[in-house]
Amino acid sequence: MKTVPVNLGTRSYTIYIGEGLLGKTGKLLEFSGYGKTVLLVSNSQVFQLYGGIVQSSLESCGFEVVPGITGTGEEHKNLATAEKLYDLAYTAGLDRRCAILALGGGVVGDVAGFVAATYMRGVPLIQLPTTLLAQVDSSVGGKVAVNHPRGKNIIGAFYQPKLVLADTSVLQTLPPREIRSGLAEVIKYGIIRSPGFFTWLEENLSGLLSGKPEFLTEAVQESCRIKARVVEKDETDQGLRAILNFGHTLGHAVESLTGYGVFNHGEAVGMGMVAAAQLAAALGLLPEKEAERITVLIRRTGLPVEIPGDLPADVLVAAMRQDKKASAGRLTMVLPVEIGRVEVVRNVPETAVLKLLDSSRPFPEP
Amino acid sequence: MKTVPVNLGTRSYTIYIGEGLLGKTGKLLEFSGYGKTVLLVSNSQVFQLYGGIVQSSLESCGFEVVPGITGTGEEHKNLATAEKLYDLAYTAGLDRRCAILALGGGVVGDVAGFVAATYMRGVPLIQLPTTLLAQVDSSVGGKVAVNHPRGKNIIGAFYQPKLVLADTSVLQTLPPREIRSGLAEVIKYGIIRSPGFFTWLEENLSGLLSGKPEFLTEAVQESCRIKARVVEKDETDQGLRAILNFGHTLGHAVESLTGYGVFNHGEAVGMGMVAAAQLAAALGLLPEKEAERITVLIRRTGLPVEIPGDLPADVLVAAMRQDKKASAGRLTMVLPVEIGRVEVVRNVPETAVLKLLDSSRPFPEP
Repeated sequence: MKTVPVNLGTRSYTIYIGEGLLGKTGKLLEFSGYGKTVLLVSNSQVFQLYGGIVQSSLESCGFEVVPGITGTGEEHKNLATAEKLYDLAYTAGLDRRCAILALGGGVVGDVAGFVAATYMRGVPLIQLPTTLLAQVDSSVGGKVAVNHPRGKNIIGAFYQPKLVLADTSVLQTLPPREIRSGLAEVIKYGIIRSPGFFTWLEENLSGLLSGKPEFLTEAVQESCRIKARVVEKDETDQGLRAILNFGHTLGHAVESLTGYGVFNHGEAVGMGMVAAAQLAAALGLLPEKEAERITVLIRRTGLPVEIPGDLPADVLVAAMRQDKKASAGRLTMVLPVEIGRVEVVRNVPETAVLKLLDSSRPFPEP
Repeated sequence: MKTVPVNLGTRSYTIYIGEGLLGKTGKLLEFSGYGKTVLLVSNSQVFQLYGGIVQSSLESCGFEVVPGITGTGEEHKNLATAEKLYDLAYTAGLDRRCAILALGGGVVGDVAGFVAATYMRGVPLIQLPTTLLAQVDSSVGGKVAVNHPRGKNIIGAFYQPKLVLADTSVLQTLPPREIRSGLAEVIKYGIIRSPGFFTWLEENLSGLLSGKPEFLTEAVQESCRIKARVVEKDETDQGLRAILNFGHTLGHAVESLTGYGVFNHGEAVGMGMVAAAQLAAALGLLPEKEAERITVLIRRTGLPVEIPGDLPADVLVAAMRQDKKASAGRLTMVLPVEIGRVEVVRNVPETAVLKLLDSSRPFPEP
């Protein structure tokens, strides 16, 4: 088992990474002092696979488990789902000392996290991420949210978990598409903060794609380490944390315009990273060769690198301007200046973005 | 103008207290660096009285004001109202730098505060409390919430405002019942922390009841000072802050069982304080004479001191056990041990409570 500490003063916590951790959930909470009733939030698919392991682990340590089963998919990450969970928690008599556990991917983690942040003004939150994407990104760092009918993550909070258990054995059962999607965020960490990790990914991509546990554990740990260091410096997203958004401005636009579900999050972020790298090269911020390395690694991962042809460039740019990170309608993007370093560029020239989005579909082979 | 600082590190802020402050809202925000669009939340009644002053003050300082008018009354303090406000904010293009202003009493402050805490994971919140109750209690200390259909303040957060403007001239137009209700919380501060303030209240009650500005300003300032010192020591309600709940365990039970609106909050808290004082005396924790002083001051304020006869004692006790502060079904109450000092008593003997609630309606004249 490996650990990554997240140092946030009174809100510090530890990420545990390793095989078979879900079966130790009860043991890890046994002496927490939390109330003996817990709400275990999951979707039916994940609950069927891992709910039993977690539930019996908790029950054998004296906890009473109230399952809170949500619908599957981004469309269930909304206030209606949160309301159902408030009802369940209140009906089961959960008080302020009782924990809420999020067993699943980003959707479950975000909505359960939002409920934990707001139920009785905040109860202990335990993240049990079951996708690679959730293990390396959404379960770490304290961003919780539900979607507004018109915008993603519009209703949320900064609320740190008390514990994150990333059980890497669950990654064995993930469909390859899910692994590839998670790897998009893993690659992101290399590009924004660590040239060494990026090179390691170039060299060990096949091991990762074939799902070898030791490779995945290493990738999860290094990703969490990088994210933790960024979050520690900027918990509430006042500055540095924006770099975690690399690839996300265009990625979110693609997700939102295609109606979520056509591309998953990692795929959209992959497209966004490729476009950001190409744009940075076009603007003279990033050497062409580095942009190529980024494009090649994302393509080798099996992620789509082409923006869908039916999304007009001007519509994409308009959606990018709606991004939460934007201010006063200016286009703000995170652009790489070398592999391992990105910058937040305000007032990105829209003509350059339009030109790139118009010309580069499909992106030419490098 | 008087000020009370609230020292909470990076979340510190100042409470301004004085006449005519609403007309200075724009000036006070002019150099805040906030976005130029603001959401001004109010109910129609309050907006009609003071919306114009605040709006033109803001507009003359270059702000664009989006009014967010909510229904009047506790039944509108819910997620549905929050959703309407999210819609308005998002439609008006409010970004993370844009402030939400709460112009009104506790309901407006709590729901607008909850929306500010959760819209885009938190935007600046300005409290403009227009009732005595809100000026001395709900606008200060960072508790924001909406109600769950089955419980008050079940969905909420700790989220500090950036500024509180308590304009005491608005108190002149308050109905006497509202002043009396606010005075219940003012008296509470004397009982929990300041024998000197309690004596001052005994001596100056008639000035307060007749609405003399200098008396009200003094009472607001001293109440905010006491609350600020408690909140500074226990921002997230882990211990000390429970003393602010004096009178509230029974008060909440009465409010909830009578369906809100029969008694207002201060009236219910007044009853709760009288009962808590009588209980403390019956348990030998508080001298009889002190319990009498408390009962007399609350009665002189014109607040009801009798629990409604149609609420059976066992039903009240069951509701008290549901209190958010309760844990594992034990009855926890804040009881005075002298005027100026209270203690959190866990495992209050239910028989004593039942006996008191059965025997003391109407409470005998002291």
